[in-house]
Amino acid sequence: MRIDYKKLTDHCAALLEHAGACPEHARITAEGLVEADLCGVETHGVSRMEVYLRRLEAGAVLGEGVFTVVKEYAGAALCDGGGALGQVTARKAMELACDKARTAGCYTVFVRNSSHYGMAAIYARMAAERGLVGITATNAPPALAPWGSHEAYFGPNPLAIAVPGRNGTAFCLDMAPSIIPRGKLMLAIQKGESIPEGWAVDKEGNPTTDPKLAWEGTLLPIGGPKGAGLTMSLDVLCGLIPGAAFGPHIGNLFNNMSRTQDVGHVFTVIDPELFTGREAFVGQVEQMLAEIRALPRNPGVEQIYAPGEIELGRMAERKQKGIELARNTYDFLIAKAQEYGVKERI
Amino acid sequence: MRIDYKKLTDHCAALLEHAGACPEHARITAEGLVEADLCGVETHGVSRMEVYLRRLEAGAVLGEGVFTVVKEYAGAALCDGGGALGQVTARKAMELACDKARTAGCYTVFVRNSSHYGMAAIYARMAAERGLVGITATNAPPALAPWGSHEAYFGPNPLAIAVPGRNGTAFCLDMAPSIIPRGKLMLAIQKGESIPEGWAVDKEGNPTTDPKLAWEGTLLPIGGPKGAGLTMSLDVLCGLIPGAAFGPHIGNLFNNMSRTQDVGHVFTVIDPELFTGREAFVGQVEQMLAEIRALPRNPGVEQIYAPGEIELGRMAERKQKGIELARNTYDFLIAKAQEYGVKERI
Repeated sequence: MRIDYKKLTDHCAALLEHAGACPEHARITAEGLVEADLCGVETHGVSRMEVYLRRLEAGAVLGEGVFTVVKEYAGAALCDGGGALGQVTARKAMELACDKARTAGCYTVFVRNSSHYGMAAIYARMAAERGLVGITATNAPPALAPWGSHEAYFGPNPLAIAVPGRNGTAFCLDMAPSIIPRGKLMLAIQKGESIPEGWAVDKEGNPTTDPKLAWEGTLLPIGGPKGAGLTMSLDVLCGLIPGAAFGPHIGNLFNNMSRTQDVGHVFTVIDPELFTGREAFVGQVEQMLAEIRALPRNPGVEQIYAPGEIELGRMAERKQKGIELARNTYDFLIAKAQEYGVKERI
Repeated sequence: MRIDYKKLTDHCAALLEHAGACPEHARITAEGLVEADLCGVETHGVSRMEVYLRRLEAGAVLGEGVFTVVKEYAGAALCDGGGALGQVTARKAMELACDKARTAGCYTVFVRNSSHYGMAAIYARMAAERGLVGITATNAPPALAPWGSHEAYFGPNPLAIAVPGRNGTAFCLDMAPSIIPRGKLMLAIQKGESIPEGWAVDKEGNPTTDPKLAWEGTLLPIGGPKGAGLTMSLDVLCGLIPGAAFGPHIGNLFNNMSRTQDVGHVFTVIDPELFTGREAFVGQVEQMLAEIRALPRNPGVEQIYAPGEIELGRMAERKQKGIELARNTYDFLIAKAQEYGVKERI
């Protein structure tokens, strides 16, 4: 079941448009979801179409929401996503940050009133593809407990940092402060698989290997109090600074169809040209990569990869060979096209 | 062996001045080291005096190094620490970032040609005490391997974020991307204790409980590839952007007395007043803290603490009751005063 990524994008865009997104927003969102599948990050790929369509139909995400710059300063701006699809808002915010960084040196865009924005790496890489260092984070509905508790309060708020090399992105870290992304629980539920102990606890705080119990419980943070503190700090930057919702006050993506999510994001861009100069900078990035690749490897390790390198390799391969979709995801996309009376493109 | 923190500061400042630091730099550095001891972060406290004095004596840190602003833009500046003591450079850089953030919204100061700056939380809290959100990171000599290797290449580069509440700092995360700070190995060696498995590997990549073997080996990162990727990304921000040294090219604090370290730092400050307004912001910070403190606690947990809350509590207590110094640290400080012919103040 290998599907051409362009056809998959067209198919998803048509469905999103039918559900209420304007053509531009439908296209950007479909591209964002497919990019995650290209990278092998299925949890943030077209498996999300079901809930995106459901939210558009319910008016819980606004298919024609308007992005506005609310406040603008020398080093930062505050933007409002207008309740639109998060992928659209994030792209616009990151474009603004990239433009501004070229004269400001470093520029940060804070965003309120947005929605689930998918794979964070997409936006960080937008900067790196332009020769800039890109950083982004978003908050998300509760999945992690503060250290000492087992009740989910903070999202598994991801942080992505992309660094340019001589040819586009040299590497891109995209990490959540949880040991695994919450989407992996959903995938395990869909596949009927159990999960390793240590990933999550159930709703009473007991260790569990049942992804359904884990889904009702909380994910465990990396480094114990460090990961818990990191996700709390990211919620301040993404939620409190722009005046978006935070913690449990963020609208649940899956269960709450009565309101927009009011997710918040942050985008920071640095232009190396204004510090050491682009040539010197990318030269040092390439030197760092060459040096770490030449280090002694652990037993069983064939190659040392930079963050995101495996994902970028997959993207190149899948653009050629197509994307292998899970059966239930494929079936859903076909059934939805039939329900909507939209032409099937996959 | 409880010592008044002001006397300890005076004693250390006198030693640093005798070793070559100008009075201002000696005072700031002593205050920074003592603040770490007040917080119970002994690894970054006056136990570092031995190496600081040795570096000053050798000219490997410049006791009168001059801080300069090299480039200045609307959203960021590049500064040069002039090879001075890191605590001094970091304070000046954070002060600049705080001043600029009040009109820029968000301002970042990148620093090259600096030295070990001690406890990162000190600088993040400088912002929070002024009602601003403060973020800082520094690079450091190798202690962590890239994921897939066991050869130390990246420092255990710390990241600190401090958030203001109604009265000063509401909370302050200060985390290294390693499971433990490297200083804990030094402390275990000094105390003759073994370390738990999982903290570090020896120089061949084998698990070890011997802190001496771990000291020659590498620390393990939190979350596996996540922590390794985070420290690599921080080295780009702290080292490559300002044009400081990076990875193994940073001068070793303990072994390399023939050059300055050329450590790099980053300081970012956000002024909430320019986004949601200070009152709304601190109100939400206090709401977040109240909500997480009221969550159900894990068995055996008496209280849910925000990041850095335990350290701030210790600081208040130790300012009153004094700091309990390790015997060998106390003995060193006394012996050094006698060697220098400096009046003992503790």
